[in-house]
Amino acid sequence: MASTKLEKAITGLMDTFHEHSRKQKHYDKLNLEELTQYIKEEFPIFLSTCATDDPDGFIKGFFDKYKDKDGEVSFNDCMTIIGIIAKTYHNRSHNDMTCGDRR
Amino acid sequence: MASTKLEKAITGLMDTFHEHSRKQKHYDKLNLEELTQYIKEEFPIFLSTCATDDPDGFIKGFFDKYKDKDGEVSFNDCMTIIGIIAKTYHNRSHNDMTCGDRR
Repeated sequence: MASTKLEKAITGLMDTFHEHSRKQKHYDKLNLEELTQYIKEEFPIFLSTCATDDPDGFIKGFFDKYKDKDGEVSFNDCMTIIGIIAKTYHNRSHNDMTCGDRR
Repeated sequence: MASTKLEKAITGLMDTFHEHSRKQKHYDKLNLEELTQYIKEEFPIFLSTCATDDPDGFIKGFFDKYKDKDGEVSFNDCMTIIGIIAKTYHNRSHNDMTCGDRR
């Protein structure tokens, strides 16, 4: 079955998650170091909008909130984080340069 | 600032949301008809995995769960739905053809 543009976008999100998650055990989850590198490399506009002062502390806040019983962030939990990140890009699409939920 | 591959993926999700949401009022939210068309057009593999019997009823279940005070689905709520959809594509990346959370 051919993939649509959005299915390809989801596949891109997933492949990049796996590129980072497989660096260290658990191979299908992100530890703090992997999540930090993932967000810094993949979402620089988000970080520059929401966490200029302390990006590492900001990312650790996500990690502490969304880590699971293994103490790591699964793909499902990462999609929740990406949903939060996406709000900021959505704001920008409406010329609103604020972080998080649109005012 | 140049966009990364994942920033482009998020932009793609957002642009396609807007293509559908602007068809009818509210122009930045999806009504049931818009959400149904959006999921059917953009995520056929998901639907064929999770809702072969009654795709319209399945999508209405999402709509009823995630619609807001305006009775429509906002971009933020839609990202929650996309997160759920993405789980099924993640399963497939691990050769698991089941719907939803990985077994």
